[in-house]
Amino acid sequence: MTLAESNHMQSSGTHPHRPLRLPHDRYFDPDPAQKRVALELYEAVANLPLICPHGHVDPRAFADPNYQFGTPTDLLIIPDHYVFRMLYSQGIGLERLGIPARDGSAVEQDHRRIWQLFADHYYLFRGTPTGMWLTHELYDLFEVREQLTSDSAMRIYDQIEAKLVTPEFRPRALYERFNIEVLCTTDAATSRLADHQAIRDSGWGGRIRPTFRPDAVVNLDAPTWKQEIERLAEVSGIDIVSYEAYIRALEAQRAFFKQMGATATDHGVTIPYTHELEPAEADAIFQRALRGEASEQDAARFTGHMLMEMARMSVEDGLVMQLHPGSLRSHNQPLYERFGSDMGADIPLATEYTRNLRPLLNRYGNEQGFTLILFTLDETTFSRELAPLAGHYPAVRLGPPWWFFDSWNGMMRFREAVSETAGLYNTVGFNDDTRAYPSIPARHDLARRVDANWLANLVVRGIVDMEDAHEMAHAAAYGLAKSAYRLG
Amino acid sequence: MTLAESNHMQSSGTHPHRPLRLPHDRYFDPDPAQKRVALELYEAVANLPLICPHGHVDPRAFADPNYQFGTPTDLLIIPDHYVFRMLYSQGIGLERLGIPARDGSAVEQDHRRIWQLFADHYYLFRGTPTGMWLTHELYDLFEVREQLTSDSAMRIYDQIEAKLVTPEFRPRALYERFNIEVLCTTDAATSRLADHQAIRDSGWGGRIRPTFRPDAVVNLDAPTWKQEIERLAEVSGIDIVSYEAYIRALEAQRAFFKQMGATATDHGVTIPYTHELEPAEADAIFQRALRGEASEQDAARFTGHMLMEMARMSVEDGLVMQLHPGSLRSHNQPLYERFGSDMGADIPLATEYTRNLRPLLNRYGNEQGFTLILFTLDETTFSRELAPLAGHYPAVRLGPPWWFFDSWNGMMRFREAVSETAGLYNTVGFNDDTRAYPSIPARHDLARRVDANWLANLVVRGIVDMEDAHEMAHAAAYGLAKSAYRLG
Amino acid sequence: MTLAESNHMQSSGTHPHRPLRLPHDRYFDPDPAQKRVALELYEAVANLPLICPHGHVDPRAFADPNYQFGTPTDLLIIPDHYVFRMLYSQGIGLERLGIPARDGSAVEQDHRRIWQLFADHYYLFRGTPTGMWLTHELYDLFEVREQLTSDSAMRIYDQIEAKLVTPEFRPRALYERFNIEVLCTTDAATSRLADHQAIRDSGWGGRIRPTFRPDAVVNLDAPTWKQEIERLAEVSGIDIVSYEAYIRALEAQRAFFKQMGATATDHGVTIPYTHELEPAEADAIFQRALRGEASEQDAARFTGHMLMEMARMSVEDGLVMQLHPGSLRSHNQPLYERFGSDMGADIPLATEYTRNLRPLLNRYGNEQGFTLILFTLDETTFSRELAPLAGHYPAVRLGPPWWFFDSWNGMMRFREAVSETAGLYNTVGFNDDTRAYPSIPARHDLARRVDANWLANLVVRGIVDMEDAHEMAHAAAYGLAKSAYRLG
Repeated sequence: MTLAESNHMQSSGTHPHRPLRLPHDRYFDPDPAQKRVALELYEAVANLPLICPHGHVDPRAFADPNYQFGTPTDLLIIPDHYVFRMLYSQGIGLERLGIPARDGSAVEQDHRRIWQLFADHYYLFRGTPTGMWLTHELYDLFEVREQLTSDSAMRIYDQIEAKLVTPEFRPRALYERFNIEVLCTTDAATSRLADHQAIRDSGWGGRIRPTFRPDAVVNLDAPTWKQEIERLAEVSGIDIVSYEAYIRALEAQRAFFKQMGATATDHGVTIPYTHELEPAEADAIFQRALRGEASEQDAARFTGHMLMEMARMSVEDGLVMQLHPGSLRSHNQPLYERFGSDMGADIPLATEYTRNLRPLLNRYGNEQGFTLILFTLDETTFSRELAPLAGHYPAVRLGPPWWFFDSWNGMMRFREAVSETAGLYNTVGFNDDTRAYPSIPARHDLARRVDANWLANLVVRGIVDMEDAHEMAHAAAYGLAKSAYRLG
Repeated sequence: MTLAESNHMQSSGTHPHRPLRLPHDRYFDPDPAQKRVALELYEAVANLPLICPHGHVDPRAFADPNYQFGTPTDLLIIPDHYVFRMLYSQGIGLERLGIPARDGSAVEQDHRRIWQLFADHYYLFRGTPTGMWLTHELYDLFEVREQLTSDSAMRIYDQIEAKLVTPEFRPRALYERFNIEVLCTTDAATSRLADHQAIRDSGWGGRIRPTFRPDAVVNLDAPTWKQEIERLAEVSGIDIVSYEAYIRALEAQRAFFKQMGATATDHGVTIPYTHELEPAEADAIFQRALRGEASEQDAARFTGHMLMEMARMSVEDGLVMQLHPGSLRSHNQPLYERFGSDMGADIPLATEYTRNLRPLLNRYGNEQGFTLILFTLDETTFSRELAPLAGHYPAVRLGPPWWFFDSWNGMMRFREAVSETAGLYNTVGFNDDTRAYPSIPARHDLARRVDANWLANLVVRGIVDMEDAHEMAHAAAYGLAKSAYRLG
Repeated sequence: MTLAESNHMQSSGTHPHRPLRLPHDRYFDPDPAQKRVALELYEAVANLPLICPHGHVDPRAFADPNYQFGTPTDLLIIPDHYVFRMLYSQGIGLERLGIPARDGSAVEQDHRRIWQLFADHYYLFRGTPTGMWLTHELYDLFEVREQLTSDSAMRIYDQIEAKLVTPEFRPRALYERFNIEVLCTTDAATSRLADHQAIRDSGWGGRIRPTFRPDAVVNLDAPTWKQEIERLAEVSGIDIVSYEAYIRALEAQRAFFKQMGATATDHGVTIPYTHELEPAEADAIFQRALRGEASEQDAARFTGHMLMEMARMSVEDGLVMQLHPGSLRSHNQPLYERFGSDMGADIPLATEYTRNLRPLLNRYGNEQGFTLILFTLDETTFSRELAPLAGHYPAVRLGPPWWFFDSWNGMMRFREAVSETAGLYNTVGFNDDTRAYPSIPARHDLARRVDANWLANLVVRGIVDMEDAHEMAHAAAYGLAKSAYRLG
């Protein structure tokens, strides 16, 4: 028994059949006058279609009309690092949660046992967004009406399992049920987008669009970079013997993505450093990298240069550019060696934008046709750097609170820190940013409630009137995402 | 049509004659008990005279008794970078807003057309302090009773224009109407303060005081530094051939400012680095600068040294020292080249005070007669560095939230972050810090409401009683600014 | 008369016998529905025993059954840098407050005069935690029923003085009255724990445990390091001629502390840098230090290495490891020279954990038996670094808000910033962290109110139900501190 378990057991008994509730007026601040306004604003946008301009749902789920999600554990635990990171933090090894090890060594295979372990520790998620999303999913999607506890675990497992095998729980059916208008995936720059092609060919009416993510072919110091370049050469049909050929191959792949429906690119970097290299210098670094001789500094300078290049291409081809900096990926080296990346061990860093983005913004930030959407894991930059940048440069827009901050408090802090300087209209609405497909409605619903709550507060304090607040709620829930990502 | 315009039009119709309201109980938190207390506290200070110890109003407005503000566009748009930065961020070129270009090339001259463009995009300011100030000005000063929209734009323009030509709208008349007790301007160290002299000579009773701002003669690496030194030599009558002569000239100008009514100096630096140089080293750097050979490092070290020198002079002459660090001025180089500085493109930087100010505070921070007022654009320093420094050093006081943070949320966050460590009495009341003269009452009113709201919350939670809260509200609205800036 | 005094006097009259109140429902947010829930949650934990796992009470107070606290000034002013730092910040010299100078030069000896000065400036503490704690102590412990003012100062002094000489105000009697279950002191690694031994020998039933704090023998660049090493050799009986002997001596002292009841260690560093040195390198640095030749860089590297070593020892001996980084001690050098350390002049620094702790966490962070409790004076790290680390690594837990942040707003911000990512169960309850023994109940009471308020907000918004909220309040007030510090 872990410390946390013993701590929990001391004060809790067993509680069979504790009812699960999902109140219609949940989450809003309690002041009755403000809550009435919040509800009115929320209800006006609650059923708008979902715009999903950035996320990590696997397009295969839509390419195969008969795709099934597997067991409840396959759906809700094994792929969701929000869930298993919290269990791991309290001493539950990833092996016990069925997370596959890289060397193929044995991990727990009994999905009911894993689910029971999850239920035994479900109290850890009290007050967390994961807890709020799961409550929404259990109640609304799986029609569960009792709380998940050690006692109810197997009953709830049975109930979810029974739903998952029905046709109503195929991804395409859920797309309609969720009222999704468009959903963008995130795809390697080297992808042939076979799943997206299959979706098109199938004649299904759902709008699934790819997003161009070139990190793997840009980061010279990644161990797989050379193979990725070979793959880029293969898919583009361009022999990448020089920096110039590399740029041509990237341009070709962007054109292909765009033709396949992409409206945006996405870039993950540790530091948002930007700096334009002379072509000869870029080529020299590129050649060193091809020979496996690039230094750490080469890699940093090349990444900074490629952000400039990607901005230039966006100015030319109109793809919206997203920048996600500031995560130190796979902080836990022993865990990475055993289980790989995306294990809940990516830890944010303090991030500087003002000086780092200056070269890029001086070169491209005044361009009318260019949109650069900035994200952050460092909330201190919202009021200090990001809102001032977005409130000045025509190209800059602010992405919604990312990752750890896609939560009630995170989203409220974002609105309060950003709006006085940048206003609402330099932000881009909500991104669910998830690989947990069934959580999408819960995430959008939470975001719409946050904005209704924020706006209701402005209304009751006499800062905006109801007519303006309704327009703002609509923009936040629907219009801004659609226009910023050019999904109109 | 910009993206923002199309986004806005999708959900908005035309709304002729939407009434403009300015509720007496606006902005306070909605809890009825707290709001009652807030109103009582606010009403007790709402009509106190305005102390304006720091700002950027042009003294010429008071020197000439017949000064007129021009058109509504001259008054409210062209000089206010809070306004045009937001419009620019949504793709509206500064040329279209009538901002004069440095090369004298053509910009929009039709002030009604500019006003219409502003009105068409007025929705961008929803929830911003600019929107709140403008609502106050339109309603209270210009007696506008309908909201500014595309439809009402010309009616409102006419109404403001008609007011601006009347004697009641001369700056001196507004000074009385605004109930200003004293207003400090910000003046170059090389100024002869001719406007201030003219005000004195005129016999008008308004109290307009200069503030000594030496940045242009301190920053060795500014392209105009050499000319500024020549101008300093001219006004001081001292031949500045050495560091020692330079210091004498600065001391002479400080004495002159003080004699003209100044009680304070102001210093803008990128980084608040302080370090005392040996006289020989200071002179060597100064000589290099005179020869145009100073390096970037020379400039940084000299600025750090001159902050020490300015503190020394303040200890000697009693002028209060203000420090405004952390703005990267003119971040947008192409815009700077076309339009110059103060174009809404100054972006904050993360700022360090604990280590940087240590030399200055170790040398002068324990002096009884010395006051150093610290400002910041990095809110993270409020609780981490600034409140601990102000809650210890006798010389240190905290300036009010600056620039982007002179807003409802910015001021609330300041009180909540600072007060538990530094208390109220290590802060210095409100600064309007504006060049938008007619916005002064709106800004002070907002600040007084913030403090009433903050104190009402302490009262209803049982942390302070009403008697103390009234004293604190009075100090925040009036007494602290007067005593800290020695304006008594 | 100081500026602050004059400012204060302008608006205040004299108010004999202003009643002092301590409302039962104080501090909670005012919304009536939320407040009802908060009160219910608070009342259920208000009388739980106090767990005091980290603090600075002198064990001598318990070793001597007849220990007396001296005068009211001895008890409440002279030892409490929270109190005198605020008075100092407003120009009241430490001499006037009776703080002993290092050179033994004369300071104020009249404790009534000091108390009067304190009362005259008591308004400075409005809205501060010090003010809230003192109100609680005056009302609850000393049964004062009028506010502390210039007028009431001597009456209140008399009242406290009369209490302090009674047997009920001996430390052991207060231990019972305060309902303390266990109290941990903080002790130099070189201590023989004579007071702890005396407590044991006395047969008194109170549980006073030592904590192992090795900073003085780890920081090579401290002027007293060499003497501290000699003292370590003496108490451990090990001749410290090498790094290896030094490590053995530390291990021996840890074993001794553990045998004397210690369950934890504590480490104060400026920067939480960690890095493992090769043994030969560690020994070379250690030898240089013994010869008085260690460089600043040697000291930094050695401290980083010793944090790794201390973690290793904790893995082996099970002592919980606490880390308190980020305070620049004795920032005010002239004050330090005159009065020494702990004069209210320690100023926080921006602190980085993600990169700095990576070596330590990669080596020991996945260990089941290891607990590392992280504290901070940089609130920006709560959501950016600390909650993500605690929400992943099994070893990491978050200490409660420290120092300046052990306040209503500080604790509320902590819960709101941390809980969505790390949950409640990766935090460790409350630390009073005080040398002001009689303030302990006030501090715990404030913390329990904060958590009741935070949880009530989650309840009324429908995020947790009452049953869960009761469990969480109990864990926050009692269970988590007990289990995290292994005090069960």
